[in-house]
Order: sequence, then C-alpha cells, then structure tokens
Amino acid sequence: MGDVVENREWYLAAYCPEGVPTSEHLKFRTVSLSIASDSIPHNHLAVETLLLSVDPYLRGRLTGTLEGLFISQYQLNQVITVFGVVRVIRSKDSKYNEGDILLNRSAPVAEYSIVPSSDIARKIDATIGISLSDYLGSLGIPGFAAWVGIEVLGKPKVGSNVFISAASGAVGINAGQLAKIRGCRVIGSTGSDDKVKLIKEEFGYDDGFNYNSESDFDAALTKYFPDGIDVYLDNVGGKMLEAVLNHVNKYARIPLCGMISQYNKVWTEREGVRNLLNMVGKEVRMEGFMLESYWHRFGDFAKDMERYIQEGKVKSKNKINIGIESFLESLNSLFSSSNIGKVVVQVKA
Amino acid sequence: MGDVVENREWYLAAYCPEGVPTSEHLKFRTVSLSIASDSIPHNHLAVETLLLSVDPYLRGRLTGTLEGLFISQYQLNQVITVFGVVRVIRSKDSKYNEGDILLNRSAPVAEYSIVPSSDIARKIDATIGISLSDYLGSLGIPGFAAWVGIEVLGKPKVGSNVFISAASGAVGINAGQLAKIRGCRVIGSTGSDDKVKLIKEEFGYDDGFNYNSESDFDAALTKYFPDGIDVYLDNVGGKMLEAVLNHVNKYARIPLCGMISQYNKVWTEREGVRNLLNMVGKEVRMEGFMLESYWHRFGDFAKDMERYIQEGKVKSKNKINIGIESFLESLNSLFSSSNIGKVVVQVKA
Repeated sequence: MGDVVENREWYLAAYCPEGVPTSEHLKFRTVSLSIASDSIPHNHLAVETLLLSVDPYLRGRLTGTLEGLFISQYQLNQVITVFGVVRVIRSKDSKYNEGDILLNRSAPVAEYSIVPSSDIARKIDATIGISLSDYLGSLGIPGFAAWVGIEVLGKPKVGSNVFISAASGAVGINAGQLAKIRGCRVIGSTGSDDKVKLIKEEFGYDDGFNYNSESDFDAALTKYFPDGIDVYLDNVGGKMLEAVLNHVNKYARIPLCGMISQYNKVWTEREGVRNLLNMVGKEVRMEGFMLESYWHRFGDFAKDMERYIQEGKVKSKNKINIGIESFLESLNSLFSSSNIGKVVVQVKA
Repeated sequence: MGDVVENREWYLAAYCPEGVPTSEHLKFRTVSLSIASDSIPHNHLAVETLLLSVDPYLRGRLTGTLEGLFISQYQLNQVITVFGVVRVIRSKDSKYNEGDILLNRSAPVAEYSIVPSSDIARKIDATIGISLSDYLGSLGIPGFAAWVGIEVLGKPKVGSNVFISAASGAVGINAGQLAKIRGCRVIGSTGSDDKVKLIKEEFGYDDGFNYNSESDFDAALTKYFPDGIDVYLDNVGGKMLEAVLNHVNKYARIPLCGMISQYNKVWTEREGVRNLLNMVGKEVRMEGFMLESYWHRFGDFAKDMERYIQEGKVKSKNKINIGIESFLESLNSLFSSSNIGKVVVQVKA
C-alpha cells in the first residue's frame, strides 16, 4: 500500500430537519488521503474500515438542530462517523499494532481514516469464533443499548412481564434475549406477521403482535398482558407508549431507548401522550438514556454478552450490505418496516 | 362525655368520574356512634377529630375507577378518610392515653371515630411551639410530598435550577423552601400576580410567573431559565410539563407529584405531551410517586422539617376553614385558582 490512498467517503452536504434523508443531505465523494507515517499524529492510527454500524440514532445527528433529540450534530462538509470495525494499517500508539482489528466508537464512514486511539472501544480477538459483524450487533451499539435498557435501567425480576417495541430490530432482538436470560415473560411488538414469527421462533420471545394489524393497541396489550407490564423498553414512542401507560403495574420502569416512530417529524407534529398522570398512581419511572453516559460499563457489558453468545444464549441477526456506497440506503432501511435485526455495511472483507 | 355521641360525617354517595365533585357525590349526615369501652376493639382508639387535611389527591379517590390515577377508591356509603389531627378519648392500646394528640394517616371525616392504632403516624407534642395545623401542612401530606419530591427524587445540587408548578399551593410552598435550603435557584409558576408576589416575598422563591398571563409557556421558561432546568417538581401536568421538556438540562429529574390541571378530565381529553423524545437525548428521569411508598421515611422527614420550622427556615401558610360542614367547599377550593397554601378544616378547637 502506498502513502496516498484514494478514499471514498460519505459527508454531510445539508441538514435534514424532517422526513427521510436523501442524497441531497448525505453525499458520497472520493478524496485522496495521505497515510504516510509523518501524516499520522502521536497516539493516532491509520486504519482501513472493515464494517460500519448503521443505527437509528444517526438520524438525530442529521437534523441540524438540537431541538427534538439533543444529540450532537454532524458538521457540514465533514465525513460522518459511526461505530465501526477497523484494521490498523499504521500505528503511532504502542498499544496497537499493524493488523490489529479494533472496535472504533467514532469511525469515519470512509474506506480509510486516521483516528485518535482514544476513540477505540476495544481490541477484537478474531480467533474466538464470534463473527466481526456481531461486534457491531449484539456486542455493539444495539446490544449495549439493550443491555443498558434491560440490565441497568429496567432491572426486571424472574417472572416480570416485559414488553419490547420494535422487537425485531437490532435492539429488540438483543433486549428480548437478555430479558429471557433473566427469567422474564417477554412480549414484543413488530411490523409484520413474519417478524412476529421470527422473534418467537428464533429469539425466544414468549409471544408478540403485529402493530400494523392491531387497530387498538390498548386491546392488544389487554390480551398479551393480563397481569400488566413491569418493564417496557420503548423504542417507538407515540401511541404505543400511551397505550402501555394504561397497562403498567406499580413501580413499572420504562427505559426510553429511542422513538423511531417520531424521528422524522418535527416535535409539534408528534403524537401527544395524554395519560402521563398514570405514572403518579402507579409510581412509574420513565428514563431516557444515551450510551455515551454508560461507556464506563462497556467492559461489563462486553464480558456478559460475549459469554452469552459463546453459550448460545444470545443469537444474532445481521443484515450485511456490501460496499460503502450502500450506506445511505442502509440508513433509510431502518425506517422502513422491512428491516430485521442489525444493519451493517461491509466496506472491506 | 356519654357513651353515645351524635356524630356528623361526610360519606361518599356517588362517584364523580369527571368535573368538580358536588353535594350529589359527597353527602353530610348525622349518625349515632357508641364510644363505650366495649365498643372499642383491642389496639383501637376512640378519638375526636381536631383538624382535617384537604389535599388534591383526594379527588382521585372519588372517580369510581382506577383508570387515570390508579389510587384506591373510597367505598360507596362509607365515611371518607383523610390525614388528620385527632385527640384520644378512650384508648385500647397501651401506647396511647386519653388526651394524647395524634396524627392519623386515615382519619374519618367525622367528628368522632374509632380507629385502629396502626393508622397513627405519630404522637404530637403540643408544647414545642408548632401549631397543630402545621402538622397537616409542612409536617403533613404536602410537606412530606415536597420532601420526597425534592430530597428523595429531585436531589438538586447547590446552584441547581429548580422549577416548581402550583408554587403557591401547599406542596409548592414547602418544596420551594426545601430547594432554597439546598442552595438552589428556585422559580415557581402560579395563578395570579399576587401569588407570584407571595412566593417571592414570603417563601423565598427567587422569581416566579403567573401562568394565566403568560400565553407562551415556552417563552416564559426561556426567560426564567437561561441556563435550563435541572429539577422540575410537577404538580400540574399537561402543557406546562410539555413546555418544561423543551428546557431540561442533561440528566434533569422530573418528580411527578400530581397533575392538578388534569384531575377533572377523563384521560382521552387530557392534554397530550408531544416531546417525550427530548427525554432520550437529555437522559431525563421522570418518576411518579405516592406517599404510601415512602412511609418508612416519614420519621426522617418529620425530624428534618420540625427543625427547619423551629429554625424559621420553613414558613407556613395555612387556610383554616371552620366546621366539618365546610369540607366539600374546602376540597373544591383546591381546584380554583384562589387557593393559597394548605387548606385545613378545623372540626374542634
């Protein structure tokens, strides 16, 4: 490999306050990047990108305003960054060597990049039989979100009734399996009959329903939760959250992981939740969370989850799209009901 | 005093699902009650009622349905019960003697009653210079609610920005003073300019606004919270809660004490809160609470609060209505914007 590489990358051309992001907002370009040794600062690494994680929260970084999600915004004309698996080409940090495969919390959506080693979450041991894409799924953002939601905030007990929305999404698949490991009864909602079948047959959910064929969420929850809901991991917000608040048990916990039904709308057009008063009598705790506040727990999570995967207690479903050019399409697939499991872009094999 | 007394009491004649309760729902009657020694079971007391506490949560016990507030309902044709100060006439419990003045968590709204001593919260020492009505205000339900909201759930730090709605109500007056003791900047909303003046001049609030003259809550909060809100003690729900969620700081806490703006409406007609998504990015914790879950902390609270009152750090505002016949009118005064401070019915001097 020479000292200068042709580098294809996605950058932010314009913010997208509402609706689905298009190629007007995220643009693809080719630039030259010097990876010569003297272009790499101290404690930095030149890396090639293997895999990129595509997650719903990215939508919030494209709005151009803090309003609505209060998540830090991508900068105009800059390459966007995501969670990713990278391989070291050249290292200016003694902790890492050429050829090391690393998990990068802030990987540029580019074929090559020079990154500070402080962005590295962990080194990956490719010999222990876990696929690299799992490091972005069950061992990455969605797995960590599921773990924080269930283990840290939801804390269900053996026999607790747990409800998870967007159950066939990457967070939902992991969260359902974690709740089952805790001995809970777990019900999921998802967008098609096939997905309901999938979460029951492959991911251990006790039952589930298709929210597109249930006109009355309240009636559905009455049916699936005759004993009420103890923990609701909310991934959708809006009407489903409102319906859940009519079925909560005393001291129910509602970790708010994200609200995919609401991301593409400005806030005044979002669905209002009218029954928050239920939270008083039932003493419900509802709590939003962002993974940035839980990095200090990432090691605990990774240790738990690696063991569950090796013991076969957590299974994965990864959709691998080939080629960095598929990034925008991959992002938008999260907001269509066709998506199942974790979406990953494979940049290099 | 003979063995049989004429006893005037308020009982529930009909549930009131929405609107303001009237004399159709709560009726007044006179019955005979035997307080003869052999009418008093073991571990029970015959008492005369001195003072009764009138609190907004009582509204929720009159709806006839658990829906909406999930608070235990009063029983039809039975005397309703509230927090009250009573004096022992005859005791069948060795811990209490004739003449003792007691705080009863579940005092019948009647002139006389026979009650289990397990309902007694504490014995009152009438010689320490605290007025009996304060035992229902700063040392009773509203003081305890303020303490749980601020000290247990809100936990503001020195310099935190604290917002309290219904600030001139009984909970608000106590909560504002507790937050000031913690060294916070405290702003209140209340229903008139006079009340704004009152909370600033008498109860230590740094500032406040009249929600009836602010057409745009969002603009008001921008003005009063240039550095955002760290703790919001919510007593009203609805539009004010929604506006607050546009001004919350990272890790803000919102203890939900009650939602007086929403009590008299069925839930589908309540104001929807559209911006719960803000709770994700700001990692906000919103938590409903009922005092029944915090009785084990009542002793800690009473010790703190008694000291604050004796040191002059917590001042009271009690509206004392004379005569048990004023109970219904006193309850409804809570839902009119004329109410200030703690409403107490004095049954016997």
